[in-house]
Amino acid sequence: MPPVIALLTDFGLRDHYVGAMKGAILSVCPEASLVDVVHDLPPHDITAGALALEATYRFFPPGTVFVAVVDPGVGSRRRGIGLAAGGWLFVGPDNGLFTLLLDAHPGAPVHLIANPALSRVPVSPVFHGRDVFGPAAGWLARGRSLAELGPQVTDPVRLELPRKRSHHDEWQGAVIHVDRFGNLTTNLDERDLDSLAGSGREGVEVVLGEAVLPLVRTYADVAVGQPCALVGSGGRVEIAINQGRAADSLSAGKGTPVLLRRR
Amino acid sequence: MPPVIALLTDFGLRDHYVGAMKGAILSVCPEASLVDVVHDLPPHDITAGALALEATYRFFPPGTVFVAVVDPGVGSRRRGIGLAAGGWLFVGPDNGLFTLLLDAHPGAPVHLIANPALSRVPVSPVFHGRDVFGPAAGWLARGRSLAELGPQVTDPVRLELPRKRSHHDEWQGAVIHVDRFGNLTTNLDERDLDSLAGSGREGVEVVLGEAVLPLVRTYADVAVGQPCALVGSGGRVEIAINQGRAADSLSAGKGTPVLLRRR
Amino acid sequence: MPPVIALLTDFGLRDHYVGAMKGAILSVCPEASLVDVVHDLPPHDITAGALALEATYRFFPPGTVFVAVVDPGVGSRRRGIGLAAGGWLFVGPDNGLFTLLLDAHPGAPVHLIANPALSRVPVSPVFHGRDVFGPAAGWLARGRSLAELGPQVTDPVRLELPRKRSHHDEWQGAVIHVDRFGNLTTNLDERDLDSLAGSGREGVEVVLGEAVLPLVRTYADVAVGQPCALVGSGGRVEIAINQGRAADSLSAGKGTPVLLRRR
Repeated sequence: MPPVIALLTDFGLRDHYVGAMKGAILSVCPEASLVDVVHDLPPHDITAGALALEATYRFFPPGTVFVAVVDPGVGSRRRGIGLAAGGWLFVGPDNGLFTLLLDAHPGAPVHLIANPALSRVPVSPVFHGRDVFGPAAGWLARGRSLAELGPQVTDPVRLELPRKRSHHDEWQGAVIHVDRFGNLTTNLDERDLDSLAGSGREGVEVVLGEAVLPLVRTYADVAVGQPCALVGSGGRVEIAINQGRAADSLSAGKGTPVLLRRR
Repeated sequence: MPPVIALLTDFGLRDHYVGAMKGAILSVCPEASLVDVVHDLPPHDITAGALALEATYRFFPPGTVFVAVVDPGVGSRRRGIGLAAGGWLFVGPDNGLFTLLLDAHPGAPVHLIANPALSRVPVSPVFHGRDVFGPAAGWLARGRSLAELGPQVTDPVRLELPRKRSHHDEWQGAVIHVDRFGNLTTNLDERDLDSLAGSGREGVEVVLGEAVLPLVRTYADVAVGQPCALVGSGGRVEIAINQGRAADSLSAGKGTPVLLRRR
Repeated sequence: MPPVIALLTDFGLRDHYVGAMKGAILSVCPEASLVDVVHDLPPHDITAGALALEATYRFFPPGTVFVAVVDPGVGSRRRGIGLAAGGWLFVGPDNGLFTLLLDAHPGAPVHLIANPALSRVPVSPVFHGRDVFGPAAGWLARGRSLAELGPQVTDPVRLELPRKRSHHDEWQGAVIHVDRFGNLTTNLDERDLDSLAGSGREGVEVVLGEAVLPLVRTYADVAVGQPCALVGSGGRVEIAINQGRAADSLSAGKGTPVLLRRR
């Protein structure tokens, strides 16, 4: 079976960056099966990268190596790391991109990428995706161990994600992502729903601005054009309009407060 | 030879959806060669999906499995189906996406996707691409039969495509797609051209609004900046401007009427 | 090892063109590993294609076959060519797309694509990517030789790239590309830097409009929001703003003059 290397970046699709990184990976591991996860993340948006990684990695076969590069600090003293979590491997900059993974897999071993033999020579100070992370992923896919990358790191950088808090049996959270359909992803999830007093999800409602939305199972549970809330495919509470764009119709975006409560 | 699984969706390229679906496919069929056909179809535009499928599938090797997902009704009672047509296999929602395939391959067997053993568990009601269609494609690529998906379906949903009609030895049709170059694809095709009275295509002209366009062989047959009509690479009559954007210069778009006639 | 075929086009990501070309390649060479380099090059922009090719090919394993298609003259008398340079193979239109490759590999053999047995039948006059270049790449990946494509070509078309000139120990050049991050790539490179009188790069500055920019090693060498110049990952002088968009903040774009000099 060819090793799978999955790519997640903010490099966009108009430039040569994705292509150059793919070439560098294949030069290390020509048998790899390269899989594009996403490249059009908002530029420099580490949180968006962390969320996209969280929403995808566990659907891949164990052993998949992820190269995740959202790297505004490239060339600075920020470290490069590799980690193993739940059977999957990851390499990328140590800037918080792996926060949600590390939260989900406490104790996952994290290693510094310090071994120059596993990078291209010379390393461009402005493109570690091509010269450091891509090759490191290629070597891991070929069977090198995390320990060969470099010494263990015990303090990987963590992102401050938007806080949510529970208050009088309500949950207060926020929109953290607007997707291509205009759907609003929040930082509230299934566990928050289930922690609300009472039984079942029938009596739960979601408040965004002046809109009070029913919690339903899928978009089609409300009429076309009507807003609703539901548990998205990644387990997060999401606000949508059946065949419409919630972000536009509800004038909401990243940071808009969202409330979860019982009727 | 690794089985080829070709992906065609309206998921866009900014979110995690494509990546999550790819992971789910590889978890079923790790040896698959995943091929991105298109992911940036207009959101929820089933007709655009049907046209993109029509314009691509027959260029792939027989045995290719297509996962086609433009799915505004996800989670509703719309069915999921798999079908075999002309040596290729297809899975996706039963919402008309396969209309042009079924027109081209009458009698193609269509099966319901009903076997829960071939889906992920649990199935998210908002993401059948990842949990139902992707895995079903993986199983077909591994050699499972259509019949293992579920019972045969005899009434797959058909799209109402824009009508064209023949009148006094003219054909009246419409623009059905504007491509990235601003070229206008119509619902008129080579057979319509050939059905016009008279012989050969030399005397044919194409009318769009006030513009009367010569039917030529390729863009470069007219001067740079000049409009023309030609038979596009998919066999449909297309209106273009040599190195320009017909959609903008001719103020035309989806639905604009187009007339085919002899001079 | 599966042969690698790398794709670089201006076909965009909304239409069926990329998918149809991939299918046609796989129909010739089903074992190929297809790698998307870039498809969202500015439509018809041959220079952008030449630059993207230059910035990527040498990172791929030798033997990789590139299909490069930016082809405003499709169907006209412009020729199709295949070439071998430095261990890599290339096919595409003879319109200048390979200028920088040919500059870097003088004497690289170039062959006409003239053998109809290596194209699809019939060839659409508006889509040589699918019917000529894709299949030719597939055949090269399967081991056919360049000579089987057709006779040698001794006068491949060369692009006029923006000129740069040296004057009183300064270099005058221009912005040739704006990337997705708003960074400005110029036609000045490391050799131009090193040819400036004096020693080392410490005393070099870069002038764009009224801005005089320090030459640094990486973005993070200046404060967030500050402009700088550096040697980009492809060896070209680049102007950027740390975590900002130089193109917007400095009101610069393709063609903006850039000066390289010693303080």
